[in-house]
Amino acid sequence: MSPQRKLLLLGTFVHSRTQQHLEFLHNAAVAVDEQGKIVSIERDVADVSEAKERLFKQLGWSEAEVDVTEAAEGQFFFPGFVDTHIHAPQYANAGIFGKSSLLDWLETYTFPLEASLSDLPKARRVYSRCVRRTLSHGTTTATYYATLDVAATNLLADLCLSLGQRAFVGRACMDDPEINPEYYRDADADETLRATRQTVDHVRGIDPGFDLVSPILTPRFAPSCTREAMAGLAQLHRETGLPIQTHISENLGEMQLVRRMFPEADSYAAVYDKYGLLTPKTVLAHAVHISDAEASLIAAKGSKISHCPCSNTCLTSGPARVRWMWDKGIDVGLGTDMSGGYSPSILEAARQAALVSRHVAMGIHVPQGDDAAAAEREKERVKLTVEEVLYLATRGGARCVGLQDKIGGFEIGMEWDAQLVSLSQVSDDGGLEEQDDNDGFVDVFGWESWDDRIAKWLYNGDDRNTKRVWVKGRLVHRRN
Amino acid sequence: MSPQRKLLLLGTFVHSRTQQHLEFLHNAAVAVDEQGKIVSIERDVADVSEAKERLFKQLGWSEAEVDVTEAAEGQFFFPGFVDTHIHAPQYANAGIFGKSSLLDWLETYTFPLEASLSDLPKARRVYSRCVRRTLSHGTTTATYYATLDVAATNLLADLCLSLGQRAFVGRACMDDPEINPEYYRDADADETLRATRQTVDHVRGIDPGFDLVSPILTPRFAPSCTREAMAGLAQLHRETGLPIQTHISENLGEMQLVRRMFPEADSYAAVYDKYGLLTPKTVLAHAVHISDAEASLIAAKGSKISHCPCSNTCLTSGPARVRWMWDKGIDVGLGTDMSGGYSPSILEAARQAALVSRHVAMGIHVPQGDDAAAAEREKERVKLTVEEVLYLATRGGARCVGLQDKIGGFEIGMEWDAQLVSLSQVSDDGGLEEQDDNDGFVDVFGWESWDDRIAKWLYNGDDRNTKRVWVKGRLVHRRN
Repeated sequence: MSPQRKLLLLGTFVHSRTQQHLEFLHNAAVAVDEQGKIVSIERDVADVSEAKERLFKQLGWSEAEVDVTEAAEGQFFFPGFVDTHIHAPQYANAGIFGKSSLLDWLETYTFPLEASLSDLPKARRVYSRCVRRTLSHGTTTATYYATLDVAATNLLADLCLSLGQRAFVGRACMDDPEINPEYYRDADADETLRATRQTVDHVRGIDPGFDLVSPILTPRFAPSCTREAMAGLAQLHRETGLPIQTHISENLGEMQLVRRMFPEADSYAAVYDKYGLLTPKTVLAHAVHISDAEASLIAAKGSKISHCPCSNTCLTSGPARVRWMWDKGIDVGLGTDMSGGYSPSILEAARQAALVSRHVAMGIHVPQGDDAAAAEREKERVKLTVEEVLYLATRGGARCVGLQDKIGGFEIGMEWDAQLVSLSQVSDDGGLEEQDDNDGFVDVFGWESWDDRIAKWLYNGDDRNTKRVWVKGRLVHRRN
Repeated sequence: MSPQRKLLLLGTFVHSRTQQHLEFLHNAAVAVDEQGKIVSIERDVADVSEAKERLFKQLGWSEAEVDVTEAAEGQFFFPGFVDTHIHAPQYANAGIFGKSSLLDWLETYTFPLEASLSDLPKARRVYSRCVRRTLSHGTTTATYYATLDVAATNLLADLCLSLGQRAFVGRACMDDPEINPEYYRDADADETLRATRQTVDHVRGIDPGFDLVSPILTPRFAPSCTREAMAGLAQLHRETGLPIQTHISENLGEMQLVRRMFPEADSYAAVYDKYGLLTPKTVLAHAVHISDAEASLIAAKGSKISHCPCSNTCLTSGPARVRWMWDKGIDVGLGTDMSGGYSPSILEAARQAALVSRHVAMGIHVPQGDDAAAAEREKERVKLTVEEVLYLATRGGARCVGLQDKIGGFEIGMEWDAQLVSLSQVSDDGGLEEQDDNDGFVDVFGWESWDDRIAKWLYNGDDRNTKRVWVKGRLVHRRN
């Protein structure tokens, strides 16, 4: 990687102040040093020259060493998105799931594709495209499941590093001889652990401090792992402090399987707890059907939940209850869960989170009589706002992967993982020029408040609106 | 409008053969005459010169009078989309609805915007953009609600005609003094009818045969209309044969209102029936909460339903049951219901129809015991497939607006309302070139079946994939 230059960014900055509120910094200037760290934020800056005068003096910087990016009128900087659950090999299947649900989907669509990626040129093609596309959608941090193949998994880590995406890369662990197909499983727990260590060593070799790319321990889900594999991965976690990711309570058939296979535990969460996988560095995907007791256990252990609304709908898994998870004190982020979910975009996941929360609301029965008003209030309360789903997409995700002090917002000391967003401005005659196509179809007429612009972006925005993407201060994607 | 040229189109043509099946015509050639009518379809055509030889001889055409469009490898022609329910003035609010539901949404967001469009330059700006954008998303036929303002409504009709979109344009009728705000209502039923006739006359003046643009009688919804207005519009329907559109059973609060305001009818559908509005040319939007008896009444009257899945979720109205409507023998089409739904795209509406059908499935309770298997089958059955939602978007919509013999598929005698769809082809190294952005983010690796390509397009496609749009043989939109 070429040495980075200092950055000066000017314009409107929008980020989550709390779960419920966005903060808008207009006429602000942000200075980012060569390590990609935000070193100063100035408000009420009239123009570039004032910004330079104030910041360069303060920081001892000189004109020649700084790249300046000024957001145009109506554009804004927004934190990069965090995808807390995405299957890189399944990129090639995005949108292909028929009428399947989890277990037959794995067998029909997913395992055959994943197994085929032991072909390295094929893996390079799929993974390159996946990383480039997710970057183009503003995903600055992705928590990836790869496949069983170590070489291909290591290649994914290489690609994230070279293309500049912050990533957690997990070699999928599946050693149970009953559930996993013969053509796609580890011989035993020893192989699972040996292969996992190979990926850990590889990533340590290419990014020793795990500054950009980190391994993540990845028991696929309880039914696919033996007790020995789970316990071994937990041991590896205790030795290395590496994060863990797995799936939990996505689907009713899966839950039956867990009950049958792990009679020693009284819940799905308890299986993970029993084998040492429920830690503060664990990301549990889905959690659609967890019980109150399981949510309390997860909260007590400090584990996180990756909410995957698109996938949960596509595979008919069920509508997960984010408000309730928050009530229980659990940190929640968003996952595309591609290709259980069809979309590689976290903006789409945020949109789907808003929609699914409305389905949760519509599922609340309003009784006749005295309890009606309370039920109506609850229906209202469980709906997620624009601000809340954008929090999930940024700071919420950052908390899930333990990076809340580094990314997810704009504060001094945090790293510059960000996107520059541009919306289409409608001309006086409502005409449609070529540039309007390049800017997507979020049409701003000019009378909208900033809150309304953000809502328009959330609901109709796409990768065209994301004009620049930076990770750790490095420009990793741009479009006109 | 300039006189049209003949068209020859070659390549792959995809359309619905039945509700459940798409038909793929590869290496086919379609000839379209100057009136925009399909006059010949040839199969197994090796190349352009063979197509010309076979078709020109058959039709007596000469080279110089024909424009040729050849779909490139991987591209395909698809019928234009039919939006059976869209509010043109609300285009400016797409994505802005907060946590509202129907009645407060009308008051907070919708009526103020609609009222403001009596300002004609503003109306021109919003309507121009709306028509251009929906065309760019492949909507070749739109069934519009406009506003109360006659001049602005007439302007919408003018714009549809000049921009070449097939449209039904409805002047919104609202004369109830209790429900409608003082600043946005008709003085009485006479004014409602007089204003409606003014728009009918205007459209007759600009498109005498209603070949491209037709008026549609538009009592907004029962609570907004007096009995006199509804009966008067029904009388106008009987005189003129014009189609009718309105809303039904979208929201529980709305239904309470109807029960209170129309005690003489025993259901919402019965209100419309009593005042003569339930006809074979009536499109009822939403129908989320209609009873079995209402569905039977609607079926018996031959009225149609516009399914608006995006809006029904956004406004927390409820999940409508398409499979059940089909079981009852009702014709169903798709509506964006923008801006109750955030998106101007029928492809997005089709996607949402698939998702919402999965929420309907997830809402089916599976009991313990003997009835479990039947409930599981029903869960499976209610899910809509890729093929079914694309049927809704094309032929289903065409049936709703009475144009099933003219549009929605590719057959001799039908009119050429179509789009040319192009998906992005992934290069060998998975790189991302500028053209890939222009082609959207549906990535085809090359090994996908045609069914899989269509699924990828449905779930991740957008306006970038729609490269050309024709209505009645006229090219009305193109992009690179």
